[in-house]
Amino acid sequence: MLEGKMETGNSSTEEDKFTVRRLEISDKNKGFIELLQQLTCCASISEEAFKERFYEIAKSGDDHLICVIEDKDSGKIVATGSIFIEKKFLRYCGKAGHIEDVVVESSLRGKQLGKKIIKFLSDHAQAMGCYKVILDCSPNNKAFYERCGFKHKEIQMVRYFT
Amino acid sequence: MLEGKMETGNSSTEEDKFTVRRLEISDKNKGFIELLQQLTCCASISEEAFKERFYEIAKSGDDHLICVIEDKDSGKIVATGSIFIEKKFLRYCGKAGHIEDVVVESSLRGKQLGKKIIKFLSDHAQAMGCYKVILDCSPNNKAFYERCGFKHKEIQMVRYFT
Repeated sequence: MLEGKMETGNSSTEEDKFTVRRLEISDKNKGFIELLQQLTCCASISEEAFKERFYEIAKSGDDHLICVIEDKDSGKIVATGSIFIEKKFLRYCGKAGHIEDVVVESSLRGKQLGKKIIKFLSDHAQAMGCYKVILDCSPNNKAFYERCGFKHKEIQMVRYFT
Repeated sequence: MLEGKMETGNSSTEEDKFTVRRLEISDKNKGFIELLQQLTCCASISEEAFKERFYEIAKSGDDHLICVIEDKDSGKIVATGSIFIEKKFLRYCGKAGHIEDVVVESSLRGKQLGKKIIKFLSDHAQAMGCYKVILDCSPNNKAFYERCGFKHKEIQMVRYFT
């Protein structure tokens, strides 16, 4: 019985160590911003600016969610991604999920953390009643997203103001 | 003087006929849904469903805007597009504008209505403090968006639930 328990414990160690949850306000001190810096330029922001943006996003409730994986050994945020739910008129007043800002700590790539993040966000979109979930990525990441059940459809166009 | 006035009047006729404004609740009866049907499947929706979605979107204020062009001669909605403003942590708590569901009445293409819609939405994104505005489109429309100041950057991946 004890052995059985221990086995269950062992087999789920990696699973327990890397579980996906919503962003919490204390995650700023667990390397959340430093992780985003691996994605694009993201200078340090003040505690106050972080809190303000956190609560602004939180106001949208389930319509804008940021998830993270915290490494329970190191206490560091090692993966993140966000999704927001767009309400449309087309498709019978349908909804579309938009995934953004997915990043996995570079030293932990290959552990399926990205896949977990995408599954968590896609499941959220489906639970929210979206008819589709979309994201933009570099052609280098196309194969990864195909393994997550996505297909290449359109091209992304961008205009920068700054 | 009178001639001058008339000239001004004449030269701005087309401009006056096709001005961009925000979606209004009465636009359902001006062919707004029928216009969206030119973009993708968009079955007729009830007055009630339209109102409910209209007010849901209106709750987001300037963070989610749908604009239209009404042909003042026919009283029909002949072009539309939407934008929502995504709040991020990266880029110093930056904001990104997402343009969606741009469509111009097929019989009126070539009159720069699409360009007006994109300009209106891009100007809104900039006024809201976005560092960029993005959209996904078919490769067939790439040249049009380049003329609107956009550049091709990434690829769009999609997963449909229905």
